[in-house]
Amino acid sequence: MSSALSGLPFDDIRSLFRKLPPADAAAVAAVRARDAELTKPAGSLGRLEEFVEWLAGWQGRPTPAVNRPVVAIFAGNHGVAARGVSAFPASVTQAMVENFTAGGAAINQICAAFDFGLKVFDLALHLPTADITVADAFDEAGCAATMAFGMEAIAGGMDLLVIGEMGIANTTVAAAIYHALYGGAARDWVGRGTGVDEEGLARKAAAVEAAVARIGGERDPLEILRRIGGREIAAMAGAILAARFERIPVIVDGFVATSAAAVLHAVDPRAIEHCLVGHVSAEGAHRAVLDRLGKRPVLDLDMRLGEGTGAALAAAIVKAAAETHAGMATFAQAGVAGRTDRDESGVAGRVD
Amino acid sequence: MSSALSGLPFDDIRSLFRKLPPADAAAVAAVRARDAELTKPAGSLGRLEEFVEWLAGWQGRPTPAVNRPVVAIFAGNHGVAARGVSAFPASVTQAMVENFTAGGAAINQICAAFDFGLKVFDLALHLPTADITVADAFDEAGCAATMAFGMEAIAGGMDLLVIGEMGIANTTVAAAIYHALYGGAARDWVGRGTGVDEEGLARKAAAVEAAVARIGGERDPLEILRRIGGREIAAMAGAILAARFERIPVIVDGFVATSAAAVLHAVDPRAIEHCLVGHVSAEGAHRAVLDRLGKRPVLDLDMRLGEGTGAALAAAIVKAAAETHAGMATFAQAGVAGRTDRDESGVAGRVD
Repeated sequence: MSSALSGLPFDDIRSLFRKLPPADAAAVAAVRARDAELTKPAGSLGRLEEFVEWLAGWQGRPTPAVNRPVVAIFAGNHGVAARGVSAFPASVTQAMVENFTAGGAAINQICAAFDFGLKVFDLALHLPTADITVADAFDEAGCAATMAFGMEAIAGGMDLLVIGEMGIANTTVAAAIYHALYGGAARDWVGRGTGVDEEGLARKAAAVEAAVARIGGERDPLEILRRIGGREIAAMAGAILAARFERIPVIVDGFVATSAAAVLHAVDPRAIEHCLVGHVSAEGAHRAVLDRLGKRPVLDLDMRLGEGTGAALAAAIVKAAAETHAGMATFAQAGVAGRTDRDESGVAGRVD
Repeated sequence: MSSALSGLPFDDIRSLFRKLPPADAAAVAAVRARDAELTKPAGSLGRLEEFVEWLAGWQGRPTPAVNRPVVAIFAGNHGVAARGVSAFPASVTQAMVENFTAGGAAINQICAAFDFGLKVFDLALHLPTADITVADAFDEAGCAATMAFGMEAIAGGMDLLVIGEMGIANTTVAAAIYHALYGGAARDWVGRGTGVDEEGLARKAAAVEAAVARIGGERDPLEILRRIGGREIAAMAGAILAARFERIPVIVDGFVATSAAAVLHAVDPRAIEHCLVGHVSAEGAHRAVLDRLGKRPVLDLDMRLGEGTGAALAAAIVKAAAETHAGMATFAQAGVAGRTDRDESGVAGRVD
């Protein structure tokens, strides 16, 4: 994809939304048919069954599998950090990228626990985007190039993409995107992020309010991303979009990662059909965002770290769901009797 | 424990409730102290932090670990199955035990996915308990011996116990236990189990109502277990209780497994402090039971299979939580700056 997209303006990205491939209905039907034969009551694995159908549909494979899952973390810096919106200094973004590389962060341990791949993408940390309260984050060429970088990032072979991020002040940026997309009051969309105090929270709300007021009434989702977004959010949006074309299902992490999905959804709700949301963040407004996206999170564990941590745990559940579906015996294979209360049409153990 | 307990009456079991060991407060404090040094905002791993403290407290280890997790499935048969309360014939209990042994069931795949041990205990499947609508399930010696069998079952070395079950008609038995313990109407506690139709559901409610009416007003939880319980439920209760003394934290599965915990809780609420509930079942009344037990489930995935499947998935999350806590770098190790908004007393990167 890179040759067609790198550095080109939004028109090329907009054109992708007109070519979104649909789910593979035959693959989903194959999963459903096999599921009905497995040694369990129909429907008794609940959402695990939904996850396997989802994998099948978006991988385009009647026997979906998660053999090469990759957690991709996109890291960016933000001019708005200078407004005192985070409990931590902006230098922590770079330090945490080094921590990822050294294997010391939470996401490293979770990836090791489940044997997931981990890729970290540092997006020009020495060049924070502009302070969105007073200027557009970047220009169209820069935003489009960053989206294209995200599209590139998923090349190299994976069958499940877990999207996470790191960036001091990026809960402020994500809140600004939600406020611009969904309205309400700035205060509705801000939370404590890494743990700001009352005054920090007030500064966050003021920054979000100022940023959205500055772009007054901007309704174009890609322009919202460009004007009050950030590099890691643009890159995640690109990665999610490219995954659709590469037939890679995506599990999106929490409050900040979801803002990338929300931009795509605002362009076209179908653009994130291939995404699960891994968990609902303890950052309060996340649940309201998920309601707007029509996404039920896989997990609800009061997490609010980012780095893809919640989505990676969800990926472990999804992978186990695929392995359960693939490995179980059928009623016929196991010689287990079927229901007694319906006509089974002579098929041993068939459950409808 | 067996020499002291096998075949002895309830008095010996009752005496155990007076000796329940508490959580190891020093181990919990050690986990909290280390957690505060790890490279993440305080509290940002949410319930993962709670799970690690819980493991530490009940394993009695300042560095808790899940190296030998075991899923234990207890299987029993029930005279009340003859009342048409299940969509499947009673022969399925034995057939599913064989499926577990052959590796074809859902729980086999989940254990394989996470490298968990699996033990299946067949509790005299050829001798169903009495039909609880007309007679006590078993006598005191039989019930106590079955609890003692459950206590024995957890011997042999494990550091996390996942409790699951299999038994056609046992959602009816569990519902009867809940109705006896918590009152209300029989209908409040019954659900569709493996998937009974409307008439089957009415038969379940009638059976639960008849069983509880028969023991009219019985308040002794162990007598409720003996009179309207079942073998796998008694064995699970024994296993959960013994695990407390062996310093093995327990993750309890869904609607039926929780009934064993509910009996213990009714004797003494402290008796299940070492238990997490792995998931909330799609069997409707489970949430109301968890509210009474004061337990927030780890997962909510609309599952209703039993076999320990929901709890085993939760165990994978808990294991990852322990590994994350153990493996992460501290702020000082990683050279990551701490908060900017509080006096850090000269300790590099300390987060309070």
